[in-house]
Amino acid sequence: MSDDGLNQLKQRLRQFAVERDWEQFHSPKNLSMAPIGEAAELLEHFQWLTEDQSQTLPPDKLAEVELELADIQLYLIRLADKLNVDLLAAADKKIVLNEKKYPADKVRGSSKKYSEYD
Amino acid sequence: MSDDGLNQLKQRLRQFAVERDWEQFHSPKNLSMAPIGEAAELLEHFQWLTEDQSQTLPPDKLAEVELELADIQLYLIRLADKLNVDLLAAADKKIVLNEKKYPADKVRGSSKKYSEYD
Amino acid sequence: MSDDGLNQLKQRLRQFAVERDWEQFHSPKNLSMAPIGEAAELLEHFQWLTEDQSQTLPPDKLAEVELELADIQLYLIRLADKLNVDLLAAADKKIVLNEKKYPADKVRGSSKKYSEYD
Amino acid sequence: MSDDGLNQLKQRLRQFAVERDWEQFHSPKNLSMAPIGEAAELLEHFQWLTEDQSQTLPPDKLAEVELELADIQLYLIRLADKLNVDLLAAADKKIVLNEKKYPADKVRGSSKKYSEYD
Repeated sequence: MSDDGLNQLKQRLRQFAVERDWEQFHSPKNLSMAPIGEAAELLEHFQWLTEDQSQTLPPDKLAEVELELADIQLYLIRLADKLNVDLLAAADKKIVLNEKKYPADKVRGSSKKYSEYD
Repeated sequence: MSDDGLNQLKQRLRQFAVERDWEQFHSPKNLSMAPIGEAAELLEHFQWLTEDQSQTLPPDKLAEVELELADIQLYLIRLADKLNVDLLAAADKKIVLNEKKYPADKVRGSSKKYSEYD
Repeated sequence: MSDDGLNQLKQRLRQFAVERDWEQFHSPKNLSMAPIGEAAELLEHFQWLTEDQSQTLPPDKLAEVELELADIQLYLIRLADKLNVDLLAAADKKIVLNEKKYPADKVRGSSKKYSEYD
Repeated sequence: MSDDGLNQLKQRLRQFAVERDWEQFHSPKNLSMAPIGEAAELLEHFQWLTEDQSQTLPPDKLAEVELELADIQLYLIRLADKLNVDLLAAADKKIVLNEKKYPADKVRGSSKKYSEYD
């Protein structure tokens, strides 16, 4: 898989941290606390909407949501970089695992968690 | 920016949902609850480590962390797809905003939040 | 306000940590990562339910949810203890602030966030 | 256990919602998304601190943290009320379970997760 886009972002985030002397704060432990903070901000946009309303966000709200998704993506790239993890290869590996964990003919139409199947 | 890797994952996640008849559960509202759950699992791996320990994870722990990062990435791709958001374009836009928000000469070496600068 | 129940739990959590020699891990920073992990587990129980379904949880699911609520409560007590914060007094103070922030005659029937009112 | 403090807060939160006609938004599903949002705000206060720094927060920061703890507590009370869960009884039950799950003589001084013991 090509991942030029992610690689470019990785490089820019490195530069961003170096220019600000922020490397000192970017331990994996500290960075592991970042995606969840951004994910919470994402969640807040949807909290009081009905599922139907969430299908058709007004443009100004969608623009905000877009930036929250971006925040999560950026911290994910940054943490993966610090841990020397290839995000796309990891995602590829995980999809294969999920396909085995949730066989289509067994779970079709059901939203039960894996642990709830026997 | 090229983003072939992300696009391929997007296609596979679509197929994954269709084959399982899970589209019905994948409202943006419901999907907005997913990245945070995975981000919490990521966080748990680092919770009781010191910052130093987090720099050098043992291989088995790193392998688990890798899959948590993958989970966040996959749900991010899936939600962005549902909202018709281009993740890389959004991330690019956000980096530019961050560069303006945190001018290097002003914030160098400081971890204060944006709101704490005057 | 009386808060004998919370105080008793605080004492038991202190003893729990001492008996296990876990005080060394319980820095406020580390403990601040705990409520969110438990809150994520709570969230997962509701993720794929409709709002209607969430009103009438089956008994076994409710029992699980009950323990997730308990986990959040326990870590909240523990962190507040470490920071020397009186949880009930803080909650009391916050309700008063919320009453001012969201005047009933202004926000009635609306779920907009505070920042969305002008 | 006496829990007059929590009960009073429960009553005030009921009144708060009724006065604002917010009951319509307070499905358990929607409320399950609230504690995690507040927990994320709590977390952000500690993210870039060292463990040592987190032990001695400056007064203004501690005042902010106090209100974040309050937010989590309030939503916890509200959701428990909606689900007809007795928070203190649940916490009591959970402590007993934890005492069995983590026998002092087995886990002393170790921060491994339950699943990591054999």
